[in-house]
Amino acid sequence: MNPFDSIDIDRLRSGHGVKWGSLAPDVLGAWVADMDFGTAPAVRAAITEVVERQDFGYPFWPGEDPVVAAFEDRMATRHGWRPEPNRTRVFTDLIQVLQVMIEHATKPGDGVAIHVPTYPPFLASIIRSGRRVVPLPVEWTDTGWTFPTDGLTEQLAGCRLLVLVNPHNPTGRTFTHAELTPLAAAADRLDLVVLADEIHADLVHKPHHHVPFATLAPHRTITATSATKAFNIAGLRCAVAHIGPDRVHDALTKAPLDYFGTPSTLSRAATVAAWRESDPWLAELMTTLRDNRSIVDKWASALPWDLRHHTPDATYLSWFDLATTPFGAPTPHRLEREIGVKLSEGAEFADGTPTDTSTFARLNFATSPSNLLAILARLAAGLANR
Amino acid sequence: MNPFDSIDIDRLRSGHGVKWGSLAPDVLGAWVADMDFGTAPAVRAAITEVVERQDFGYPFWPGEDPVVAAFEDRMATRHGWRPEPNRTRVFTDLIQVLQVMIEHATKPGDGVAIHVPTYPPFLASIIRSGRRVVPLPVEWTDTGWTFPTDGLTEQLAGCRLLVLVNPHNPTGRTFTHAELTPLAAAADRLDLVVLADEIHADLVHKPHHHVPFATLAPHRTITATSATKAFNIAGLRCAVAHIGPDRVHDALTKAPLDYFGTPSTLSRAATVAAWRESDPWLAELMTTLRDNRSIVDKWASALPWDLRHHTPDATYLSWFDLATTPFGAPTPHRLEREIGVKLSEGAEFADGTPTDTSTFARLNFATSPSNLLAILARLAAGLANR
Ligand SMILES: Cc1ncc(COP(=O)(O)O)c(C=O)c1O
Ligand SMILES: Cc1ncc(COP(=O)(O)O)c(C=O)c1O
Repeated sequence: MNPFDSIDIDRLRSGHGVKWGSLAPDVLGAWVADMDFGTAPAVRAAITEVVERQDFGYPFWPGEDPVVAAFEDRMATRHGWRPEPNRTRVFTDLIQVLQVMIEHATKPGDGVAIHVPTYPPFLASIIRSGRRVVPLPVEWTDTGWTFPTDGLTEQLAGCRLLVLVNPHNPTGRTFTHAELTPLAAAADRLDLVVLADEIHADLVHKPHHHVPFATLAPHRTITATSATKAFNIAGLRCAVAHIGPDRVHDALTKAPLDYFGTPSTLSRAATVAAWRESDPWLAELMTTLRDNRSIVDKWASALPWDLRHHTPDATYLSWFDLATTPFGAPTPHRLEREIGVKLSEGAEFADGTPTDTSTFARLNFATSPSNLLAILARLAAGLANR
Repeated sequence: MNPFDSIDIDRLRSGHGVKWGSLAPDVLGAWVADMDFGTAPAVRAAITEVVERQDFGYPFWPGEDPVVAAFEDRMATRHGWRPEPNRTRVFTDLIQVLQVMIEHATKPGDGVAIHVPTYPPFLASIIRSGRRVVPLPVEWTDTGWTFPTDGLTEQLAGCRLLVLVNPHNPTGRTFTHAELTPLAAAADRLDLVVLADEIHADLVHKPHHHVPFATLAPHRTITATSATKAFNIAGLRCAVAHIGPDRVHDALTKAPLDYFGTPSTLSRAATVAAWRESDPWLAELMTTLRDNRSIVDKWASALPWDLRHHTPDATYLSWFDLATTPFGAPTPHRLEREIGVKLSEGAEFADGTPTDTSTFARLNFATSPSNLLAILARLAAGLANR
């Protein structure tokens, strides 16, 4: 049996004493952000081992932080990038890293560039910090979403920081080396720090592959990642940032030592087990996601409307346009209320920018094939009705 | 069988893949900071339940954070203080809280008052932040350690923040209501913010009892605590701070939302289980600690030297002076190297202040009675030899 079909989704949805499901019982959908699967057996075993040993004391170790060592090894063996030693800090999560880097790499009023549409908390974090969102275009073409680079230098004027989300959320595109090169050149010309959020790097579907931005611009790049997406452990809150730019590295070195908090022993053990021992599980996951991706592809192309859908290179997310459907724009809660499905609504992926994504929706297809088919059937019927 | 004698200390010491023991095999001692015990069964069960459910997704919940609710209920039922709603934030640990509050309640050059001797990271954090340590006296008397308040107003001149560690580390004193009153009055007179570190509040031995500083000065007090000391889960990194002063509360409300990181789902579940379901375990722990405390008392009074030892009101720590022993001052690693026991060395508890605690040592007596007896026997023999 496929382990990715075996998890008791209803039990998960019914929620834990600490966490409760966000879906009403009559609404279909994967979790908004998490996968409807469990995690790798080695990850669970690592946590259980700590619990059995009752090893709940202070996390001390004689040498390098084991999370940092696991990150460095994984980057070298899996992604062909050898991080510089003593440049990696442990944080609790990627949005924290973004907020810390905004404070340490820019000043109020500075521009922060990011490809739009994007994962909404990025926009919210930039706006709340008093920096300006400088949107870089993501363009739909017949052959796929693209990241145009014409006029990049002009677009980036007044920016100090480029937030590069690669693989890209919500389109699922992976930036090719050819697409990254002009970004690296522009960063050089304009003396930018680049925060490369590579949290989905382990979820790239073949034949695509992930190119760490740090391989192009080691001294400009802050690489932020975690095991939380590929191994479905967002609640464990453990992330790393490799800080290439001396200026940012020095600024953070001067901050109080525990200012940004620390992940727990259990989260560290889980992250190490994910990165060092869970690739067989990840390979199975990728097969499941690939099958689900085909289901979405076939569904989209069988519809009587053009959803402007493209097969994502990476992630478990599909991004499509409902403009030509009778249903139209998924304004807040309409999909949930009127159709009974839970998707992310497009508008917030471009909030506060001139880009209009209000007719788009983002589907999380990391669920069992049967649930996915039920979601898509209900969605197709609902989109026709208006 | 006593559960506090049943834990496999050697197994704990041999260390986990993530955490390694800090003791060489031929050195006796409890952990420097943790207890040589496990944790409460309900805490382990709560973690195991999350692992079995594979509930590793984002920690969302519909209403109040369950950690905050458990904190508020515990303060009301156990410590007679009703925290103001919507004033509690979750952090990963107490030293983080201290560092965040130093930044938000004071400016570089301001004085930060604290009773000295104190837990060394407090001093290190104040010094590193560019604030001045303003030491308040802790005085030895025949009847116990005291916190003199003569001249408090003059001592506190130039301070913006008082860090009140109650119960006090390393002496184990709990501040009585009578001792807290002049501190609250001085805080009022001088318009101070008081950071009350009450992390050991659940470890007060009868007939002493804990008085939350917030009951005396609700609008001046930041109360910081966690379940990590009483329930021996420091590695889980989950803490709370209740922020009474409007000015600090408002400043933190303006900070980026995820700037200080977030504890994991597992750590939250563990904290809730500790605070809501683990008091029977805590009661047994207190009996064990009380018995151990008597062993230390008897040991100290049977020695041919006066260690200036007083029975601690709270905690699992003993603070004593080796000045009159043939061994003398425990300069770094001497106790470990020359006697083969691991204690905390006194000097660092007053580092950077005029107070000289270099002849003192702090013993952690939260270990099995047999290990404690072995430590004390070896220590007594070693102190005689010089
Ligand atoms: C690209 C990207 N970055 C960051 C995050 C959030 O990361 P974290 O939970 O570590 O803050 C997400 C979550 O979906 C994401 O898609
Ligand atoms: C009084 C006191 N406060 C804080 C701490 C450290 O707390 P945390 O591990 O939450 O940073 C300790 C640890 O021994 C302590 O004794």
